[in-house]
Amino acid sequence: MSQGERSTNTGHSGKRHRGELRYEGKAKRVYASSHPGEYIVEYKDEATAFNAAKRGQWAGKGATNNAITAHLYPMLEAAGIPTHFLEQLSETEQRVRAVTIIPVEVIVRNVAAGSFSKRLGIEEGTELSRPVVEYCYKSDALGDPLINTDTALALGWATEAELTRVRALALEVRDFLVPFFLERGVRLIDFKLEFGKLPDGTVILADEISPDTCRFWDAASGEKMDKDRFRRDLGGVEDAYAEMLRRVTSPALG
Amino acid sequence: MSQGERSTNTGHSGKRHRGELRYEGKAKRVYASSHPGEYIVEYKDEATAFNAAKRGQWAGKGATNNAITAHLYPMLEAAGIPTHFLEQLSETEQRVRAVTIIPVEVIVRNVAAGSFSKRLGIEEGTELSRPVVEYCYKSDALGDPLINTDTALALGWATEAELTRVRALALEVRDFLVPFFLERGVRLIDFKLEFGKLPDGTVILADEISPDTCRFWDAASGEKMDKDRFRRDLGGVEDAYAEMLRRVTSPALG
Repeated sequence: MSQGERSTNTGHSGKRHRGELRYEGKAKRVYASSHPGEYIVEYKDEATAFNAAKRGQWAGKGATNNAITAHLYPMLEAAGIPTHFLEQLSETEQRVRAVTIIPVEVIVRNVAAGSFSKRLGIEEGTELSRPVVEYCYKSDALGDPLINTDTALALGWATEAELTRVRALALEVRDFLVPFFLERGVRLIDFKLEFGKLPDGTVILADEISPDTCRFWDAASGEKMDKDRFRRDLGGVEDAYAEMLRRVTSPALG
Repeated sequence: MSQGERSTNTGHSGKRHRGELRYEGKAKRVYASSHPGEYIVEYKDEATAFNAAKRGQWAGKGATNNAITAHLYPMLEAAGIPTHFLEQLSETEQRVRAVTIIPVEVIVRNVAAGSFSKRLGIEEGTELSRPVVEYCYKSDALGDPLINTDTALALGWATEAELTRVRALALEVRDFLVPFFLERGVRLIDFKLEFGKLPDGTVILADEISPDTCRFWDAASGEKMDKDRFRRDLGGVEDAYAEMLRRVTSPALG
């Protein structure tokens, strides 16, 4: 095993060796894999907000987000949504299909909150009469600016067919997740998705689904159970993430 | 004539009396008219930029923008684009069809410039491979924030049919204006439009088309001939507006 590589037991699929670091984001590292066509994703304990102007970390954050994502993705696959997820490898690692990330982040909003509320003067918690899909250019340097599909097309970030597929898949993810969470006492306020392309051009869901990338409000109390607890210094952030893992892995409420 | 009213000779259509002020924007006032179904628009000499953080004015600005708009709108009508424009009434006034303004501003971009360049890190002057249509929520209080069509629909600012029509008309305006200006030695970099609804729901072009609402660059020298001279303190702003009026009212170059 060369320097920097690491062996990971994959359970039923044989060992994978972690290769070179391909990408490091704010909350994850993506490594090459000894297995062609795959990457190994490592979830970090670091948390950032406001385009990394605010930073923090807590033990177990990476493991919690990894576990939540690893629980949700196979269910999305079963619901007919193609994803990059293959298998959880360890507390903080999963193996995924190697994709080229489309540099257009997709935000699906069910209820006004966060930057949407602030930008448009709409009170947080206002139910939207229909889902709003927003697009941002994935660029840490620019702070992930809001764009629209015309801009993505004109600047060559995606094709018309890819954007059509991305939107359809994002709404399918919403249609699966909203009732899934509601059955576990959680309102899904909004969430961010990323998509990638396989070598043959197929668009599939990539990235994570976790309290880092979704707004979750307790359906009964309205309490925030997501990264807003960190962004807004509300306290109890570790407990909220742990509670979300518990809810996600619980059966539906009767 | 009651207090605050004013008589305006309309030439061939009989006198109009200016009624109550219906709306005052940053560069225009809109008055009721003694003639039903019409408004009288008055162009002001005030200039503002950066959501009115920067203010100025110069004599003749209102007259110049009124004259440019009054010259362009009948040509757009002739090209099949329905507009609110009826007739120039005076140096600074025009009469228009009374519409309810759709609170969604439309920006059509041919070349990267201004906020688009800054937001996306694209050098000013970069030709876009296809036109980009952007939408902003018309709100001085919020600084006309960028939105997309989903947001306009979810918040009830326009219907799907209206937005489809708005986009089609905006691109028709572009297809008329780009060659029109190029034949007069001017590159149309980007422009902002507003649309209104007649009582029967018909969507028509409203507002102005002027150096306040367009970016015009001299085709030979690249010199700016629009409000950026004011925004960026480049000097020569009055001359630039006057030159644009001269170009607009000149025949096409050979």
